[in-house]
This record gives sequence, C-alpha cells and structure tokens, in this order.
Amino acid sequence: MLTNPRSDRVRSVRALQKRPVRSRTGRFAVEGPQGVREAVRYAPEQVVDLYVTPEATARYADDIVAPARAAGLWLHEASPQVLAAMADAEAPQGVLAVVARPDHALDDVLAAAPRLLVLLSHVRDPGNAGTVIRGADAAGADAVLVSDASVDVHSPKVVRSTAGSLFHLPVVTGLDVADTLDRLRAAGVRSYAADGAGTTLLPEADLAGPHCWVMGNEAWGLPQEVRERCDDVVRVPIHGRAESLNLAMAATVCLYASAQMHGSGPAAG
Amino acid sequence: MLTNPRSDRVRSVRALQKRPVRSRTGRFAVEGPQGVREAVRYAPEQVVDLYVTPEATARYADDIVAPARAAGLWLHEASPQVLAAMADAEAPQGVLAVVARPDHALDDVLAAAPRLLVLLSHVRDPGNAGTVIRGADAAGADAVLVSDASVDVHSPKVVRSTAGSLFHLPVVTGLDVADTLDRLRAAGVRSYAADGAGTTLLPEADLAGPHCWVMGNEAWGLPQEVRERCDDVVRVPIHGRAESLNLAMAATVCLYASAQMHGSGPAAG
Repeated sequence: MLTNPRSDRVRSVRALQKRPVRSRTGRFAVEGPQGVREAVRYAPEQVVDLYVTPEATARYADDIVAPARAAGLWLHEASPQVLAAMADAEAPQGVLAVVARPDHALDDVLAAAPRLLVLLSHVRDPGNAGTVIRGADAAGADAVLVSDASVDVHSPKVVRSTAGSLFHLPVVTGLDVADTLDRLRAAGVRSYAADGAGTTLLPEADLAGPHCWVMGNEAWGLPQEVRERCDDVVRVPIHGRAESLNLAMAATVCLYASAQMHGSGPAAG
Repeated sequence: MLTNPRSDRVRSVRALQKRPVRSRTGRFAVEGPQGVREAVRYAPEQVVDLYVTPEATARYADDIVAPARAAGLWLHEASPQVLAAMADAEAPQGVLAVVARPDHALDDVLAAAPRLLVLLSHVRDPGNAGTVIRGADAAGADAVLVSDASVDVHSPKVVRSTAGSLFHLPVVTGLDVADTLDRLRAAGVRSYAADGAGTTLLPEADLAGPHCWVMGNEAWGLPQEVRERCDDVVRVPIHGRAESLNLAMAATVCLYASAQMHGSGPAAG
C-alpha cells in the first residue's frame, strides 16, 4: 500500500493540477467515485493509474474495483493521506484516477453526422464549462466543442462539475472559432449563437435539422464577428425582470429545446 | 468620507455575513453594482444604507447614485478599504447596500392567484438556490418558496448568485414543506415534484394550469412522503449517458417548459 504522502509518485499526481503539467504529460486527474466510475466504464483505455483507499476498495467493490480489474487497469491501494495529498478536492472520497487526455478531432465528430453540438467560445469559468458538458450529455448532444482561450476542460474543477459526463461524449478542445463555424457549415450543421442580442426567440428557432449552439464568454458574450458568422442569433426569452440567464442555464435551456424537437420530430433516432 | 476599516460601523456591516446576526437585525448586505442597482430600483423602501467609493460614485452615477438620491436613500461615501472590509466578496466593485429583509408571506403570494411557483425543499448549496431564484425570475415565476432547513437566501453567496433577481419577485422563506403543499392544493395550485424517480416525463406533464415545481436536496432529492404529497412526480428526460442534471439546471428546464406552455396557451397574460 502507498503510504508516503511526500513520495515522487504523489508529487507527480498532484502536479497534474497545473495546466502546463497536464499539457506536457497529456494526463489529468479524476477525483471521486462518480468521475472515476464513468472513466473506468466508458474510457478504460485512457485510465493510466487508479488509486483507491482500503475503505473505498470495499465500498466501490462492484462499480469501480471489479470493472477496473476486469479491464486490466493498474490498481494501487493507497492510504487516505496519500489520496488527500494527490487531490485538489478536500474530500476525494478515497478514489482518484490518472487518465490520458483523449485526442478527439473535429473531423471525426463531423464524419459521424452529428445532429446536436455545442461550441464554447472563450468560456472561462470552470463550473460553467463543466455544467454545459453535463447538460450536453443529458440532452443527448453528439459532442462538445471548446475554443482555444477557454478554460482547460481537464482542470480539476471542470472535471468535477461534469459529474462523469466528460467520458460520455467527445469533447474537442483548442478550436479556432471562425474556422470551426466554417467547417460546421461545410458539414451541413447550422450554427446558432445563443445571445441576448438575438432577434429570433428560442421557441421560434428552426431546431429540426443538425445544429450547433454557440455560447460566448460569461461577461462579454459573443463578439459581433462571431454572431455574424453564425446562421442565426437566438435569444432565450426572459419573461420576468431578470437581465439574463447565466451561461450554463442558457445553454441547458437551448440544448433541451433541441432535444425535445429532435425527440418529437420525424428524424428521431 | 468613511475611511476607517476598523470602525464600529464597518464591523457591524461585516457581521451581516453571519446568519445569526442577519436573523437578529433583520438585515443583510448586497455587494456589487448589479444587486445594488436592482435593490435601489425595485426595493428602495428596504435599503437602509448605501456605501459607495468615489470612483463608483462616478461610474454608477446614472443607474445607482441618481435613483438612490431621488428615493431619498442614505448614501455614504466610503474608501475602497472600507468597502473591502465590509464585503464578503474579494471585489465588491465599490458598491454595497445594507437592506432590510422583506417579510413576504405565503398567504399574500397565494392571494395574488399565482400561475407559476417553485418550492425549494432543503436546498443547501448557495449557488443552486441563487441560480434557481434567477431562473424563476427569468421564466416569469410569481414567487419562490423556500423551506426551513434550506440555505439562507440572504447569505452573501446566494444574494450574489441571484444577480439581482432577489428583488424582482417575492421569496418566501422558513416554510414547512407538508403544510405548504396543503395550502397550495387548497389554493388550486398543483404541485409537481421534479425528481429522477418520476414516471411522468416533462414534455408530457400538464403545465397548462397554475402549478408549483418542488425541488429537493442536491444529494438525496425529495423524501418519499413529499413526492407522495405532490400531485405528480415529473422527470426531466435524460437522452445521453448522464445520470442526472444538477438541481439548478433541472429547475431551469422545468420552469422554462412551464413558461413556454403559459406563453403559448389560451391563458397567456
């Protein structure tokens, strides 16, 4: 059992909290049973190392440990102190995985004839990014696209707030927004900027065909040149006195409007 | 100008970060221009004191200072150090108001023939509570009801995450859940538990008449006896592999489904 919280191994896992280290090593950490369970279940080929306390080994015997063993993953027993020293969260609940960053490409996403996508343009808040990934998963989106200059989706806070959804659908990162919009158009996917400046109200938007929601930065929204490059600019109606919805809420409302349209339309899959 | 960050006045404002002090004094603090602007605009009778730095006095001359003066509010110029010492947030952006807690009663809400309500039952996370209040406002809800044993909606984090919506619609606190459900029924308002255990899917729920969404705790949801006391238990459909939506997202999706139904129905107001 690993018991030394100051070992080189512990330091190297802890260092994955830093973006440059994640970039250099191509790895990130997943903390807590929910994320680790989904990683083991849906992306075992990406799991490099799994650290589990004796207590957690018993508690998650069926849903984490057994499937990890069956997949031939490298399982290390570690003391609670070692887990705490590795983790960003105050309580990683006895489970942590080091995972290789997947290499999803926009070409692969487009080749699979997607019907619902979301593109995050310069989204900076980890909670927002993670919540949108979770909402996109729940709404049945085919992938999440993330622009360069957005928050790193493999940072501990984003990973945590995706609640495992990071392993449920492809998340393509580092994209140039203008280039991505051009490639979406070439692939027959309409792009809809979700923005308070839109003149099309959400219930009137044409959500029947393949489309991609484009969400802007929390503070300044989408720049005009991005809005103009999109096929439409759509506004979530505000019925009360609120100025707006926050980014994650607006994205979820838009994605669920799309999901309902897809689910009830003739092309429902 | 107030310049002493250790004065009794500063200490007494800072003390409003503590729930017992808010209970005893019946006051709470609103930090930052967005919340303060909405308080001055929609609830000037509740504003006890307004603290503004010289820089913020210039910046918010039109949307905060002028309306505050017009309403006869007590406006104090204070140094940035004084503002920082008063505030919970790292950057209150030069504006802080001490506000009297309003005394909204369920009877008043029900007497106004509400069409859309949301009841938070044992919701503990400040960000979730604040986001639901903001979403309820945006969806045009008539009021937000909050059970006892929920987070204090006048805590700094909740106030901040409502983004001013706290002053846009009545928020009734300290309610007993079972009693509230009985009174809703007596008033002709149907209650819908939003819960993953529901057998009615959201698109199939009857949202035409007056109704109240009932949202449970982040971790354990709604207890069975509450679900059974509601008129229906409704599930937001999950199309992908996600286990669930988080509380604030689920509430927003439900509230917007109601808003769209109300907006397009024969009873649209």
